[in-house]
Amino acid sequence: MAYNELYQYSVVSSLMEGIGETGIPYSELVTHGNHGLGTFRRMAGEMICLDNEVYQMKSDGSIVTIDPSTGNDVAPFAMVTRFQPSFTTSIAFDSKQGLSDIMTTLFPKTKNRYLSFRLDGLFQSVAVRTADGQKYKHEKLRELHQRQTTYEFTNVRGSLIGFRSPEFLQGVSVAGDHLHFISDERDRGGHVLDCKTDGEVQFAGSIMSTVHMQLPDDDEYNEADLELDDDGIRKVEG
Amino acid sequence: MAYNELYQYSVVSSLMEGIGETGIPYSELVTHGNHGLGTFRRMAGEMICLDNEVYQMKSDGSIVTIDPSTGNDVAPFAMVTRFQPSFTTSIAFDSKQGLSDIMTTLFPKTKNRYLSFRLDGLFQSVAVRTADGQKYKHEKLRELHQRQTTYEFTNVRGSLIGFRSPEFLQGVSVAGDHLHFISDERDRGGHVLDCKTDGEVQFAGSIMSTVHMQLPDDDEYNEADLELDDDGIRKVEG
Repeated sequence: MAYNELYQYSVVSSLMEGIGETGIPYSELVTHGNHGLGTFRRMAGEMICLDNEVYQMKSDGSIVTIDPSTGNDVAPFAMVTRFQPSFTTSIAFDSKQGLSDIMTTLFPKTKNRYLSFRLDGLFQSVAVRTADGQKYKHEKLRELHQRQTTYEFTNVRGSLIGFRSPEFLQGVSVAGDHLHFISDERDRGGHVLDCKTDGEVQFAGSIMSTVHMQLPDDDEYNEADLELDDDGIRKVEG
Repeated sequence: MAYNELYQYSVVSSLMEGIGETGIPYSELVTHGNHGLGTFRRMAGEMICLDNEVYQMKSDGSIVTIDPSTGNDVAPFAMVTRFQPSFTTSIAFDSKQGLSDIMTTLFPKTKNRYLSFRLDGLFQSVAVRTADGQKYKHEKLRELHQRQTTYEFTNVRGSLIGFRSPEFLQGVSVAGDHLHFISDERDRGGHVLDCKTDGEVQFAGSIMSTVHMQLPDDDEYNEADLELDDDGIRKVEG
């Protein structure tokens, strides 16, 4: 796969429906990209992929480095790319919305395309959540959301990996900005609910127009009702 | 691209919005598949691709063979695959709905995946429409639909090329079955509104789980409002 093409396994609506028993092996996923986010079997935690490493950020706050070559970990949903930024700059912002507004200014013509981005530096605060994992088969993401663990880190050095997806692809991907964070120490991280800088942090981004989507071929996926739950996705992935 | 992977250029919602000035050159499109359907610049007619040929079926009833290597034809929207049927049989049906019902029986687990198929034989009747082409820039497909030309062919030998797309991907593709027809004589064809066999015809089909989607990178597409018009797509592409 060329640089800045999106590889996506499954669709977000499938995750919403609680399809979490199977997925793409991480050994295969990492052949498609080195920058991304996703989840694990039964939605046990948040995945972040950067600098050729894959991490599982669990709801108890622990972080595990995944070894794709030996593990049997799978992702029921993941988005990855071979990231090569087309644009880099330094930015400061006081909220996740502020970051979104800056990116809209930096990339004015991405409404109907994807954007991949990365931030590195010192963050004044990063609020994250981590999914707890399904308690029973087909437990929906809306249910998991009720007992997600949230943390707020302050004055933390780390990296944000994110994707912006078009509104009209809500349900396929997560419409809007979807970000995961991990600290430089690799000891804190999760799905970003909010974030704030003090000074400037490094921003790198690239537009993605080419999408490779792998739909699961197992019965669990094939039998799911994948009707769009726009409100649910915004609650759970916002 | 491997067999039975879907290559799609742009999305149906873009076509609905009348984004028809630019598209993928046919010289490039044919490198992604030899079985497919789509349209032309300004939605001038219906495209069918089979047996390594591409045809433009125009609203005046004429059919032009496209030479991808020399022409400057582009497709604002197209779906193609390297078709290799995983299942073939003989079937008879008395309507497009009857054909759909048979395919649901033949491929019970395709609700959330794509299906490509082809029919060859003698058809008792095939009702088609052909789009007239945009009269002005950004004329929407709903408008073009008002003045589409319809034909009904009886006792005609020919081929149907089609795709079944998941309901939850309405707007990306055309949810449900989307079929184009061309006669063996290459003198009649179009977008299939209804079809009926007398005896049996040959059916060939295959499931597609891998999707390569190329989003346009021109301003016309980037600025379009691609909100889903489910009712419109069903009217226009049904």
